[in-house]
Amino acid sequence: MTADVSYDPRSGATAASVVHTTPAEVEQLVARAAAAAALVGQASPATRRAWLAAGADALVDNREELARIADWETALGWTRLDGEVVRAANQMRFYADVAVEGTYLRAVIDPATATTPFLARTNVPLGPVAVFGASNFPFAFSVFGNDTASAIAAGCPVVIKAHPAHPLTSQRTFEIVHAAMQAAGAPDGIAALVFGYETGTALVQHPAITAVAFTGSQAGGLSLWKLANQREVVVPVYAEMGTVNPVVITPAAGHDITAIADGFVQSFTMGSGQFCTKPGLLLAPRGSGATAAIAAALDSLAPEPVMLTSGIAASVTRGVAELQSAGATIAAQTPPAPGGWSSPAVLLSAPVDLLQRESRLLEECFGPVGVVVEYDDLDEALEAVDRLQGALAASIMIGEDDPDAASVLSRVERKVGRVIVNGWPTGVAFTWAQVHGGPWPATSSPATTSVGAAALDRFVRPVAYQGLPDQLLPPPLRADNPWGVPRRVAGVLQPGAQP
Amino acid sequence: MTADVSYDPRSGATAASVVHTTPAEVEQLVARAAAAAALVGQASPATRRAWLAAGADALVDNREELARIADWETALGWTRLDGEVVRAANQMRFYADVAVEGTYLRAVIDPATATTPFLARTNVPLGPVAVFGASNFPFAFSVFGNDTASAIAAGCPVVIKAHPAHPLTSQRTFEIVHAAMQAAGAPDGIAALVFGYETGTALVQHPAITAVAFTGSQAGGLSLWKLANQREVVVPVYAEMGTVNPVVITPAAGHDITAIADGFVQSFTMGSGQFCTKPGLLLAPRGSGATAAIAAALDSLAPEPVMLTSGIAASVTRGVAELQSAGATIAAQTPPAPGGWSSPAVLLSAPVDLLQRESRLLEECFGPVGVVVEYDDLDEALEAVDRLQGALAASIMIGEDDPDAASVLSRVERKVGRVIVNGWPTGVAFTWAQVHGGPWPATSSPATTSVGAAALDRFVRPVAYQGLPDQLLPPPLRADNPWGVPRRVAGVLQPGAQP
Repeated sequence: MTADVSYDPRSGATAASVVHTTPAEVEQLVARAAAAAALVGQASPATRRAWLAAGADALVDNREELARIADWETALGWTRLDGEVVRAANQMRFYADVAVEGTYLRAVIDPATATTPFLARTNVPLGPVAVFGASNFPFAFSVFGNDTASAIAAGCPVVIKAHPAHPLTSQRTFEIVHAAMQAAGAPDGIAALVFGYETGTALVQHPAITAVAFTGSQAGGLSLWKLANQREVVVPVYAEMGTVNPVVITPAAGHDITAIADGFVQSFTMGSGQFCTKPGLLLAPRGSGATAAIAAALDSLAPEPVMLTSGIAASVTRGVAELQSAGATIAAQTPPAPGGWSSPAVLLSAPVDLLQRESRLLEECFGPVGVVVEYDDLDEALEAVDRLQGALAASIMIGEDDPDAASVLSRVERKVGRVIVNGWPTGVAFTWAQVHGGPWPATSSPATTSVGAAALDRFVRPVAYQGLPDQLLPPPLRADNPWGVPRRVAGVLQPGAQP
Repeated sequence: MTADVSYDPRSGATAASVVHTTPAEVEQLVARAAAAAALVGQASPATRRAWLAAGADALVDNREELARIADWETALGWTRLDGEVVRAANQMRFYADVAVEGTYLRAVIDPATATTPFLARTNVPLGPVAVFGASNFPFAFSVFGNDTASAIAAGCPVVIKAHPAHPLTSQRTFEIVHAAMQAAGAPDGIAALVFGYETGTALVQHPAITAVAFTGSQAGGLSLWKLANQREVVVPVYAEMGTVNPVVITPAAGHDITAIADGFVQSFTMGSGQFCTKPGLLLAPRGSGATAAIAAALDSLAPEPVMLTSGIAASVTRGVAELQSAGATIAAQTPPAPGGWSSPAVLLSAPVDLLQRESRLLEECFGPVGVVVEYDDLDEALEAVDRLQGALAASIMIGEDDPDAASVLSRVERKVGRVIVNGWPTGVAFTWAQVHGGPWPATSSPATTSVGAAALDRFVRPVAYQGLPDQLLPPPLRADNPWGVPRRVAGVLQPGAQP
């Protein structure tokens, strides 16, 4: 395949296709990014904010066109996609604000003492970053999504590999945002868009690439991670990958099962179940009627959801069959839909002891598929959680003054990057505190997050300056603090000029 | 070999030996560390500080005995070793203070808004850490050195693999400090000491180990990194490894060549050249007389330094021969010393164009070996720097209002974790700002440091809590902030109770 073909998942009809980037073009684009690295890295955070804000404005100005193209290519629905364009724009503004606030630089100045020299530290940008767009969020985790916005905010140019599930959306988004950023004064090399699987491989292997950001499947993320580890100069791969996000319902919470059942169905079928935070396994006390209640909630759902690609639709069918082979049984599923790449939304149930024997039940099944397990004893449920892979998020449903809340929390939090109480893991707010990451293999770099203020931390490294005269120090460390960043001076935190 | 034999490097004489830890003992010790993980992790930073302070006091109380054992085993000199014991104690106190100050937790609280839920984030300890003691600093980077002290301060128990170059020093240090920490209330499993190469391998592969810290050779560090990457649950390896730390003398600084020559010889022969920050390659302007001045400075040195082990002594001889095969010539060396594991301190010189062709000149030669290269054009020197591996540190010698200072700095800082102006890279102060790390392969995790306040960051990961009631939140996130840590609340930094 030498082109990414644009398909309508609702019918399988094809439109235009986008030709894959050639190796010579990749060389040229990476060289342009490398040439822009010093300009982008040395620009003040406020200057980078102006560039990102121009891109964000352009996204919002073109939201109707972008959402229309994306809805045709992804079938995720115009309303959601229109909102996602706005979200992507707000993310760009948020990361730019985080950069201007300046804590991410972790500036520290240790004046000389009788026994130690003058030492000052700041974070510096890594250089060109390869960003792999995700299939499931054509705006928020794609061309100018979280990874790109946080990398540019941190001072790194990006080379973006478009996901083949929505080539036209990717191309049009890039054109609009890149032109607006350039018009605002950003160097041409601040961002580039490339197409093709081999192109992605070449990017990860390119000596000028200093980091890789990826959102997608475990197979995809781990193969990039392995590739990067084979480089002469190994670079970090920030792969945020799919795993099972568990839900534990304590005995005290079990009385509210109808509301929980509705919430579970809504959460695991949202976006056709194509969220990396989809709750895949629900553990409920036996006697709570969880299985029947969830089955009933699913029965009232519309016909089969439409998947992004024929490949994903096939993998859902395969995944359900694997879960059945492992001993789970189908408790409910949505009625068939006509044509296109639809897959039934499926609820499976399994006996709790099966989780001790069948590892397939502990792995992700991408798509609108949920597994419910009723336990006799809470310890059985927690032992199943112990056996799960590291995950992005987990939900705990607890009651008032729940005697089990603290112990369930302490067992569950070991496994995840985010714990939700009496809520669902889908929906990832981009705020200062957010963590969208988790223990291996939810993330290949488990102390990092791809969403939230700390997303910038992935694209910088610290440098210490010993004995440098003031005029040679980078701006965050100069006596007059021209960027107004918070700093620790002689061990004491000093606030910055920005709130 | 089933025991680490204690040798006197000055004579080759042997003393007692320490039997290698058996696989069953490793299982028991790791299980004890895993059992202690919750206790150590949930203890307040102030409680951990009390434990570490007790250990530090015990080190200082026993400095004479410890320095005596270490001098016999390492020949590094009683005065230096006595000072190093005190340094190790002060490091323990420093990291404990950093933990109590609390910024390392990066606590953030985002109250709920109209569109986002309550979200709060804090760093949590990873769990049991495997620490590999270094050969060259039997106290400061060994059993209770930087890695152990920062891991415990961050809330992680440690299992320490003793370096075979000084088994008795390791054993006695462990006994003294572990007993003192236990007497202060620390759980038994807070630290364990193991011996043997296979034991180290087993540690890195053990499912209960959550991170690995290592200081030493590239071969050693990379083999542990590869091993950790083959685990089912991959864990981070923080390996701080030897590379060439370059020194660039600008044309404007060349006039001061006698002082620079004395400083270079002192720095590259310090500790018998067995420092990972040893300046290995000095680039000086032709006509500055650098080669002759350094040769003269070396000629005034005492006889051959004594190396830590016979293996290191042999590797120095081999390294010098390799540099000669690559085309470097010996410009000066120290006179032979009688007996033991001595190696001459050697100055080699090489023409600048050789650096473009012979990669051996761009790699570390561990031991008291320095290479001087005279350049005609500063660009030649900077191209050589471009070709070097990532390094821990680089020195730049500049003149008053030096027109080349800024451009040399910008080229050099890309390659290192620390830049020193008009000083030498040996001597690594443990302060808030310090960075002892650098681009791959100076460090296997290039955004981290093994010395300085940020050393704690290696042993924690962030967890976000969504919708949790106050009483279920960990202490750093509770409304009453019981540990008094600095926090960002609703986007605004709030100072902590500690300075």
